[in-house]
Amino acid sequence: MKPLPDSVRAFVDAARVCRIATVRTDGEPHVIPVCPVYDGDTTLYVDIGPKSTTARALEHEPRITVLIDEYDADWTKLRKVILRCTAEAVTGVAQERVWEQIRTTYPQYASVEWSPRLTMALRISGWLQEGIVSPAH
Amino acid sequence: MKPLPDSVRAFVDAARVCRIATVRTDGEPHVIPVCPVYDGDTTLYVDIGPKSTTARALEHEPRITVLIDEYDADWTKLRKVILRCTAEAVTGVAQERVWEQIRTTYPQYASVEWSPRLTMALRISGWLQEGIVSPAH
Repeated sequence: MKPLPDSVRAFVDAARVCRIATVRTDGEPHVIPVCPVYDGDTTLYVDIGPKSTTARALEHEPRITVLIDEYDADWTKLRKVILRCTAEAVTGVAQERVWEQIRTTYPQYASVEWSPRLTMALRISGWLQEGIVSPAH
Repeated sequence: MKPLPDSVRAFVDAARVCRIATVRTDGEPHVIPVCPVYDGDTTLYVDIGPKSTTARALEHEPRITVLIDEYDADWTKLRKVILRCTAEAVTGVAQERVWEQIRTTYPQYASVEWSPRLTMALRISGWLQEGIVSPAH
């Protein structure tokens, strides 16, 4: 995989919501919004309900596609990154580290009693972007 | 299918972006942002590139899932609608009618030379929503 440019990493890192698409066991696509955290390199982390449609889909098909985009009525400002990933569960100390980052990034989690559920590492194996321009050097 | 409540219809109608998930021929999920128009009932319309990954996916698997959601740092304000749909191409007079609605809804289309490409009717066969509360009567 071509390395993610710094401009794309910064865009992914700043995202407070992304949309994740999976394939259900019956072959139908599924998509939900989730709040991610990013390791700055090739892994995004999300926490999902262990009995959710997304969790059940990932048991059957671990490939998952992540969309991070910003809509603007000014279409010259549209930006998006699509990340092709493979999901794997994170447990134990690794999960606790992810949750430290989640708590820091989303202090509002405390208000909704959101505690660790099924924490998934989404390993990026491919990507494409549109509209994200690196700052001039 | 249970009819869409007025509150959900209003939410869908107001959306200027949605995310649509499809399944590629190799079984991998795909998701992109698009600008929809809505007939107010059980059909959403989107226009996509005829050679895009989404178009190729739909040739193989017409089932498509639409996510319309609003993110807010205040998690009590999170809202989403997921629409399970089947896609079919719209041509001729029907396509021109959809495009009249697109031109009205998105006047900025003129600035990007966006003209009719592959216009798809997404027929809603199932839905779920979270966070959308009907106004009290």
